[in-house]
Amino acid sequence: MVNPMLPELNVAVVGATGAVGREFLKILEQRPLPIKHIQLLSSKRSAGSYISVAGQEIVVKETTPDCFDNVDIAFISVSADVSRQFAQIAVDKGALVIDDSSAFRMIPDVPLVVPEVNGRDVEGHKGIISIPNCCTTPLAMILYPLHRINPIKRVVVDTYQSVSGAGGQAIIELSEQSEAVAGGRSIEPQALQHQIAFNLFPQIGDFHPSGYSDEEEKMIDETRKILHYPNLRISATCVRVPVYKSHSEAVHLELEHPMGLQEALECLREMPGVTVMDEDGYATPWNVAGTDDVYVGRVRKDQSVANGLAMWIVADNLRKGAALNALQIAEEVLRRDCLRGQ
Amino acid sequence: MVNPMLPELNVAVVGATGAVGREFLKILEQRPLPIKHIQLLSSKRSAGSYISVAGQEIVVKETTPDCFDNVDIAFISVSADVSRQFAQIAVDKGALVIDDSSAFRMIPDVPLVVPEVNGRDVEGHKGIISIPNCCTTPLAMILYPLHRINPIKRVVVDTYQSVSGAGGQAIIELSEQSEAVAGGRSIEPQALQHQIAFNLFPQIGDFHPSGYSDEEEKMIDETRKILHYPNLRISATCVRVPVYKSHSEAVHLELEHPMGLQEALECLREMPGVTVMDEDGYATPWNVAGTDDVYVGRVRKDQSVANGLAMWIVADNLRKGAALNALQIAEEVLRRDCLRGQ
Repeated sequence: MVNPMLPELNVAVVGATGAVGREFLKILEQRPLPIKHIQLLSSKRSAGSYISVAGQEIVVKETTPDCFDNVDIAFISVSADVSRQFAQIAVDKGALVIDDSSAFRMIPDVPLVVPEVNGRDVEGHKGIISIPNCCTTPLAMILYPLHRINPIKRVVVDTYQSVSGAGGQAIIELSEQSEAVAGGRSIEPQALQHQIAFNLFPQIGDFHPSGYSDEEEKMIDETRKILHYPNLRISATCVRVPVYKSHSEAVHLELEHPMGLQEALECLREMPGVTVMDEDGYATPWNVAGTDDVYVGRVRKDQSVANGLAMWIVADNLRKGAALNALQIAEEVLRRDCLRGQ
Repeated sequence: MVNPMLPELNVAVVGATGAVGREFLKILEQRPLPIKHIQLLSSKRSAGSYISVAGQEIVVKETTPDCFDNVDIAFISVSADVSRQFAQIAVDKGALVIDDSSAFRMIPDVPLVVPEVNGRDVEGHKGIISIPNCCTTPLAMILYPLHRINPIKRVVVDTYQSVSGAGGQAIIELSEQSEAVAGGRSIEPQALQHQIAFNLFPQIGDFHPSGYSDEEEKMIDETRKILHYPNLRISATCVRVPVYKSHSEAVHLELEHPMGLQEALECLREMPGVTVMDEDGYATPWNVAGTDDVYVGRVRKDQSVANGLAMWIVADNLRKGAALNALQIAEEVLRRDCLRGQ
């Protein structure tokens, strides 16, 4: 798929020790880029550790401006604040930044890309391409094929989001808290706002004046941008659940025109990167963790509205929701030969 | 509240050793009925154990037809099959049956009652009054006050249902499986269809030809019956989550007429049995377990539809979702003096 005539790449992975960074390095072994040199970068705190990449032990270095000299692609998976600190430096030094944070997603001239949906948008980049939120990507993958043949009028989506979406500390918190609660003890929440062991809560990020949370606003805004559909009517409730990996979403759609169930299923089956479960089948987060596809199941007529469809979607939030999508963007850029922009 | 002139009651609790039965006996201590004699009944397997009620150790007996001689009220919290086996026997012997199963809920002359919503319906009973599904009751408690002043056009609800809704074995399964998974082992699911530890799945009951699950169909049908609103447009996805107690629901409403957010909050605040959380506040299942109210939070304008409202509701499924509602129905019957029907 990758143009063999391309010069080999000088790559930097910022946030290499984080949950998404580690997943990225794992995927890179299965799905190699033409890499000449790779730097693993992190915060000062995590620097000095070693990570094995393609059988080679590589030391993790602290991220500094100098690291971006001669870098072709910088994959950045850190907080929005840290992204803001380094992305423009990397761009100024000539790198293409593929950024996983929310920092640049809604800036008009930053492409926000799910390659199977709006891969062409990478061609307009000015140095930064953003990866959508880990709940937005699976939703866009399902909405797009339907919307292409039957415009979507309204979307209601409620999520079931795993703790890995909140980073490595939240994973540890679920594990330690579950053990504590089982032993009749309690542990003060630190990485998350509330106890997550045997509990759940409808808050991811702060609340906006609209009453929607930051995560919900992201899903709404980003879905509109990816689909090039600024007036899409969409509502969401985003909920953190005591699951380690994979985000699930209950989706209720309203289409413009009537659509048979078989036609909808056929349309979804033709979408690359989507696996459609048979009949009443469905995926669970535990079962799809570590896989690449967006799984859609329980597709049924939503009889509460004209031209309604309801369904259940699950995807590994660290893979298609983040690291895999980042790597696919790089592949798309190389395929379209627009590493340096246009 | 209870008419002091009433003769004292002869009560039978069928399913006394189950999760709902035990909760019922706990609530009875806080909220006594005028009881002369109480029998605790169970399957043959659980008979012989002792349960403490108001400081008295009572032996649990096997349920047989003879047990219902001279019983005034039989509270039944068992499977639909076992309910079908005993309820009519109890009625024929002159008892009022208050039944927690799905066996009779949709029979036209069986009242299906949430006392705060349609308490008056108890007056039409022919010997059996049904308790709604544990997800239906909290939803009806929230829809009713709004619907009274502003007709509800459509409801979309996605649930987060705790394992106690599936009975005592499911509670043990979550506990043992969580420990096993933490230790790197796996345990075959028995009480539930899939691994529930650190996992979740959108199936409660079998699937109907509509593609909706049995639990979803119950929510839809029962909500319509309780609200006396057979044409209510409502869609649901019901999901089992790794939480011990309390069911949560993400609700998206469409009202007939415009309604200010403050007006909606005021309306909900006036509803008995409902606690409205301030501003962006919300309840979590862990925090409300063991309490009586339906907690509604994150009430906000749903901007994806005209006259839309979105919210988050949580209630203890064993209490308001089952045992408390059963006891409230008995209180309602005594208050309306219709123990023997009309």
